Amino acid sequence: MGGDFAPQSVIDGCVIARVRHPNVKFILHGPAQRIMELLQPHGELRASCEVRDASDVVGMHDKPSQALRRGRTTSMWRALESVRHHEADVAVSAGNTGALMAMAKFQLRPMEGIVRPAIVAIWPTMRGQSVVLDVGANIGSDPLQLVDFAVMGGAFARAVFGLNRPTLGLLNIGTEEIKGNEAVKTAAKLLKESRALPFDFKGFVEGDDISAGTVDVVVTDGFTGNVALKAAEGTARLIAHYLRSALTRSFFAKIGAFLARGAFSVLRTKMDPRSVNGGVFLGLNGVVVKSHGGTDGLGFASAVDLAVEMARNEMPRRIAEDLKTIAPIIAQLQTQKPRQPVLPEPGVALAP
Amino acid sequence: MGGDFAPQSVIDGCVIARVRHPNVKFILHGPAQRIMELLQPHGELRASCEVRDASDVVGMHDKPSQALRRGRTTSMWRALESVRHHEADVAVSAGNTGALMAMAKFQLRPMEGIVRPAIVAIWPTMRGQSVVLDVGANIGSDPLQLVDFAVMGGAFARAVFGLNRPTLGLLNIGTEEIKGNEAVKTAAKLLKESRALPFDFKGFVEGDDISAGTVDVVVTDGFTGNVALKAAEGTARLIAHYLRSALTRSFFAKIGAFLARGAFSVLRTKMDPRSVNGGVFLGLNGVVVKSHGGTDGLGFASAVDLAVEMARNEMPRRIAEDLKTIAPIIAQLQTQKPRQPVLPEPGVALAP
Repeated sequence: MGGDFAPQSVIDGCVIARVRHPNVKFILHGPAQRIMELLQPHGELRASCEVRDASDVVGMHDKPSQALRRGRTTSMWRALESVRHHEADVAVSAGNTGALMAMAKFQLRPMEGIVRPAIVAIWPTMRGQSVVLDVGANIGSDPLQLVDFAVMGGAFARAVFGLNRPTLGLLNIGTEEIKGNEAVKTAAKLLKESRALPFDFKGFVEGDDISAGTVDVVVTDGFTGNVALKAAEGTARLIAHYLRSALTRSFFAKIGAFLARGAFSVLRTKMDPRSVNGGVFLGLNGVVVKSHGGTDGLGFASAVDLAVEMARNEMPRRIAEDLKTIAPIIAQLQTQKPRQPVLPEPGVALAP
Repeated sequence: MGGDFAPQSVIDGCVIARVRHPNVKFILHGPAQRIMELLQPHGELRASCEVRDASDVVGMHDKPSQALRRGRTTSMWRALESVRHHEADVAVSAGNTGALMAMAKFQLRPMEGIVRPAIVAIWPTMRGQSVVLDVGANIGSDPLQLVDFAVMGGAFARAVFGLNRPTLGLLNIGTEEIKGNEAVKTAAKLLKESRALPFDFKGFVEGDDISAGTVDVVVTDGFTGNVALKAAEGTARLIAHYLRSALTRSFFAKIGAFLARGAFSVLRTKMDPRSVNGGVFLGLNGVVVKSHGGTDGLGFASAVDLAVEMARNEMPRRIAEDLKTIAPIIAQLQTQKPRQPVLPEPGVALAP
């Protein structure tokens, strides 16, 4: 029931996803009657679906703490519950991100050894795609959390991009070692000193390195990552706006645009946020994919694609394996500060 | 002597700037003989120039602390010195940003009441242009520094955009009040409570609001601001790359691109980073404009445009006036923590 166009967009997405992934089964949580009506014209999807009635809905502007206290009858809670009970391999929601993360943390709990789960985004680059995390699960990060993000991002890139040994950089405001805040400097030191990491640590990268594709995985705190992601989205929208107005300002421009319409349709597909839709919550005992709230069926289907990939790759197991490689770092830091899992709290970030 | 193509790019920039601002006089600091040679073909510029010999140069990768210790014979130091001695109204450099900020802080000193100077950038938006600060002078900011940035950014927007009462937002990862780190939440509270601010505080904005032009002034810490700015630049470069390859992939696309070339040239101008070139250092007793290091004469001329505007508008005086309006906020906070000007330090940020 999450997102601006639910449940229609979710059903539309599942119709597309069923064709792409014929063996995937769906459990749809929400108002059963309404969902059944929407499923009516889609016989094949209906056969792959189990509908479970959930009468309540988490509002897009509910506070995470509120949602957590009062939300146990909502479709969001129930969807996560089906992952907790191992009925589903992964949950997909286009709803309120903060509430989803709070509920996910509460129900699925952080994996052993992970202080804070993160949200991972796939970012288009000059070289193809890169992974950026955290893009909004946390509002600040200490060195150890950044190291956790590195491990999770590395495991994600290996699974999703099929890379044996992804390259990884820490987002900073300069590539020299003297620059940046204490958290990134310490994290860089820890990563540089560790042997046998399951990725290739390349040191610091800057904001423009993300789109350049300098590394496969860009690690940053949730505040900076979220701002960077949205600043990039805003820039893409601004340029699309420039392009549209440039191509309609003269007769020749219009003809040119018409002749090049094939090229523009390629460009549109490349820039379509629906083609890479979904932030993945990593670091929990179970995977959750957050679709953009404003997306339609096509975008929701992309989120399902990602979810299927996460399930096929058994992400939590892979992360657990990779976590072993940073055990020495953790041991080193544990002497300084006790490592405690973080309980859900109202500070969970990212707008829906 | 700063930047990748100095001193040629500086001279080329001054040639353009002299035509645009015939009454402006230039003091050029650098190797006198080489500069005189480059000035040779430009008689009119030569008449507006005074050349002062400075044999040394701050390297693009010198640490700020090094530059500060050993740099008193460099062209950068001398340029700032001429502002300190009131021989020049403003200094323009395409050199090492960290060194420039460290030297500027040391020579010009922070204005009374300003804890940390900031770097201001002009950002193209759907509505025209907005101001973003800090984009890299600091690596983290407390609430009071964010309030300082707000005052400086407001004064800048009033001067540069000719606005009577600019709108201003604090960059955050959600617009609800519960979101974000303590610094932005406290700064928002302080700004909301203050009466008689010289700008209209609109609360929180998100990364995509920058390009949308939701507010005239976007305030953030130097780490986030720098990453956002570079992430946006990287995205613009990525889309330009997509566009180029889309328009050369088929015969019709090429013809279309040819017919629409007028439109693309408009677009190119809009997207040309040289047309809005220059980060302005604000909060010092004197103004410094930092040009992109990789720019050419046209870009350097834009930095000079900005410098002229800053000088004509007497930015430090305007900021000093506006600072009075936040005196109550400062008083409120001074009871909690003493307010001390910050001395130059090696942590100064932003790559050249």
